[in-house]
Amino acid sequence: MTAAGKTVNNGVNVEALLGAREALTNAPEAARFKWRAATEWKNGTHSHSTVESFYGLGEEQRRKTTFTFNADHPEVFASEDKGATPVEYVLVGLASCLTAGIAAVAQNRNIQLRSVTATIEGDMDLQGILGIDEEVRNGFSGITVKYVIDADAKREDIEALVAQSQKRSAVYDIVTSPTNVTVLVN
Amino acid sequence: MTAAGKTVNNGVNVEALLGAREALTNAPEAARFKWRAATEWKNGTHSHSTVESFYGLGEEQRRKTTFTFNADHPEVFASEDKGATPVEYVLVGLASCLTAGIAAVAQNRNIQLRSVTATIEGDMDLQGILGIDEEVRNGFSGITVKYVIDADAKREDIEALVAQSQKRSAVYDIVTSPTNVTVLVN
Repeated sequence: MTAAGKTVNNGVNVEALLGAREALTNAPEAARFKWRAATEWKNGTHSHSTVESFYGLGEEQRRKTTFTFNADHPEVFASEDKGATPVEYVLVGLASCLTAGIAAVAQNRNIQLRSVTATIEGDMDLQGILGIDEEVRNGFSGITVKYVIDADAKREDIEALVAQSQKRSAVYDIVTSPTNVTVLVN
Repeated sequence: MTAAGKTVNNGVNVEALLGAREALTNAPEAARFKWRAATEWKNGTHSHSTVESFYGLGEEQRRKTTFTFNADHPEVFASEDKGATPVEYVLVGLASCLTAGIAAVAQNRNIQLRSVTATIEGDMDLQGILGIDEEVRNGFSGITVKYVIDADAKREDIEALVAQSQKRSAVYDIVTSPTNVTVLVN
């Protein structure tokens, strides 16, 4: 219940998150997380990945479930289309990160969400990855995310929710700012 | 068969890829692709995404299969762990992109792969996304990918395979270089 007497439930435990923030402010070592995946080449461009353990709160964390993913290229690239392409995984990561953030911020701001849907599209000129034109980058030239949000709030408050989610999104930061990647063999 | 009489099969149709490169050199408009996902908020930090259509070769492309993905936060964040976290999706995308590239480059270089596995780990200080320390970024402070590759090739040739895959990887580029993201509401 809020001062206005309105009870909002977006399914996000904001008290736990605020408690975590306070706890981790006093124990910065516990805030150091390691997220992981393991990938096995199957055949051609098809690979199979698993996501299970991670490290955080000062210790190894194991889930009840192992999440599994197939990645491949589509048939127009003479592949077998056994899974989403790697770049589509990035789009799923970005849209799901922003969407979780919208729910968490809405809960914290006492805004009841009814529905949130996003369509996300990344433009890519294949002249990059095919090595046709060295001036063309391999990745996306740009990404557009379009939200349709039905919530018990004014339009400006809904826009502010989305802006705050961008500000605190891990994947938005990964995509918009450079990250150092080290690749080792054996 | 090669000049050395060795037949290599990694399941990658390199002739088709080289043909595509030639065709797209002469028809740059066909090289402009759009990759997509659609994401629906379910409850809390849980969302459900679908990947199906894309645009390329000058027209809408539809797959036989719709790929579906759940994303969520783990129980230590007071969530229900109904799917991998958004940042783990990025790790799956990066490892699967580099792995597909290794297979394609190996085929082109006449190197028979026997097995390729990767473990990928991203370091993240949660003081960023929790807003504890403005100096800490929201995303990964760094990512390390470790490959174990069994192939019919010298170590230096295997290392060169991995280096070439990085050079041509869409997701490696997305993670290591900034991409413009536009987020629109309604």
